[in-house]
Amino acid sequence: MDNYRFINSENKVSNQVIKRLPRYYGILKDLENKGEVKISSSQLARLAGTTASQIRQDFSVFGAFGQQGFGYSIKNLIAGINDIIGIKLQHKAILVGAGNIGKALLNHLDFSANGFNLVGAFDTSPDLIGTTVNEIKIRPLSELESFCKINGVHTAVICVPKEAAIELVSKLYDINVYNFLNFSDYDIKMAYPDANVETVRLGNSLMCLCYMVTNFR
Amino acid sequence: MDNYRFINSENKVSNQVIKRLPRYYGILKDLENKGEVKISSSQLARLAGTTASQIRQDFSVFGAFGQQGFGYSIKNLIAGINDIIGIKLQHKAILVGAGNIGKALLNHLDFSANGFNLVGAFDTSPDLIGTTVNEIKIRPLSELESFCKINGVHTAVICVPKEAAIELVSKLYDINVYNFLNFSDYDIKMAYPDANVETVRLGNSLMCLCYMVTNFR
Repeated sequence: MDNYRFINSENKVSNQVIKRLPRYYGILKDLENKGEVKISSSQLARLAGTTASQIRQDFSVFGAFGQQGFGYSIKNLIAGINDIIGIKLQHKAILVGAGNIGKALLNHLDFSANGFNLVGAFDTSPDLIGTTVNEIKIRPLSELESFCKINGVHTAVICVPKEAAIELVSKLYDINVYNFLNFSDYDIKMAYPDANVETVRLGNSLMCLCYMVTNFR
Repeated sequence: MDNYRFINSENKVSNQVIKRLPRYYGILKDLENKGEVKISSSQLARLAGTTASQIRQDFSVFGAFGQQGFGYSIKNLIAGINDIIGIKLQHKAILVGAGNIGKALLNHLDFSANGFNLVGAFDTSPDLIGTTVNEIKIRPLSELESFCKINGVHTAVICVPKEAAIELVSKLYDINVYNFLNFSDYDIKMAYPDANVETVRLGNSLMCLCYMVTNFR
């Protein structure tokens, strides 16, 4: 697998490439499950909605080169992407805010398949505290600090409104939780430039669709 | 505003640029609300987490050029992006599947600000049908066809599991609903190449965060 390690000088892959890897990974896992063993860049491009040259360029960044006339080994690509992203590391994570979006994530998001071990969930509502969603117990916010310290948690999924997020992230940052999957409108990265933040802006997806509806067909 | 219209030969902006416009738009609207009237490419770059040259390149694609020593007019940029995306057109949309994710969207996603007029919601569950979420009545699937035809709906937000989505999208496509905001694992674009599809893959966001947690700090 060594040839799949980062080979560019800065020892890191560009943001643009990283954003595309999960899509490739999902497609490759589907193909593997169907018993496929190899794939050409043009086949993968068709499935991912991109170009063969983009695929070859993206994979070359981390040292994966297809063989002429054979293509890429699906197993090796999966292992390579797994290695770069660190999916097997199963970083511990908590979720805060068990309203509709939080519950949807607890029920339907496969944390483990995407690199995380979800170890706890928190909310302020007395109606929710003590209940269990998909085998995860909802705990009161008063237990947040001790829970994160005892379990060595450095990652949180933020499913609370902006106002609550400001105070919550400040508290989390103080106890060494600095990785965030952010569903709030609060710009965590602006407030904490050295935090790792992935913000999900569903309104932006809607706007991208709006562009298509306006301009195509 | 005419100088903000598409100026490249194909009369369309690249996908990569389009994906960045909603982020710029959100930042610009915030600045406008704070009473700001102009912004330099480097200021906007800092807020958007990109580079000044990227900003200038993206805006030049649709014919917006900042003035040396003044920067961009925030009002004009907002109007320009609005024009390209077609936010004011308020395309009619429905939502199908009022479970946790559907409810979260009905309660918290600002459809209007992102170009759509949400006119109806549908579910199969007798417990949900007839109830109202954020002033939107949940209707039975049996009314889907007549509702879309009467109201001239061509856009649907898909919040059902993959198995249900396969049948649902087939039904919708037959009645001329061909624009989809897709929260299911079903690859609609693969099945209907001429549909307009924006798929939200929350697992991919988690994987991008996993990459950061694995490699940084």
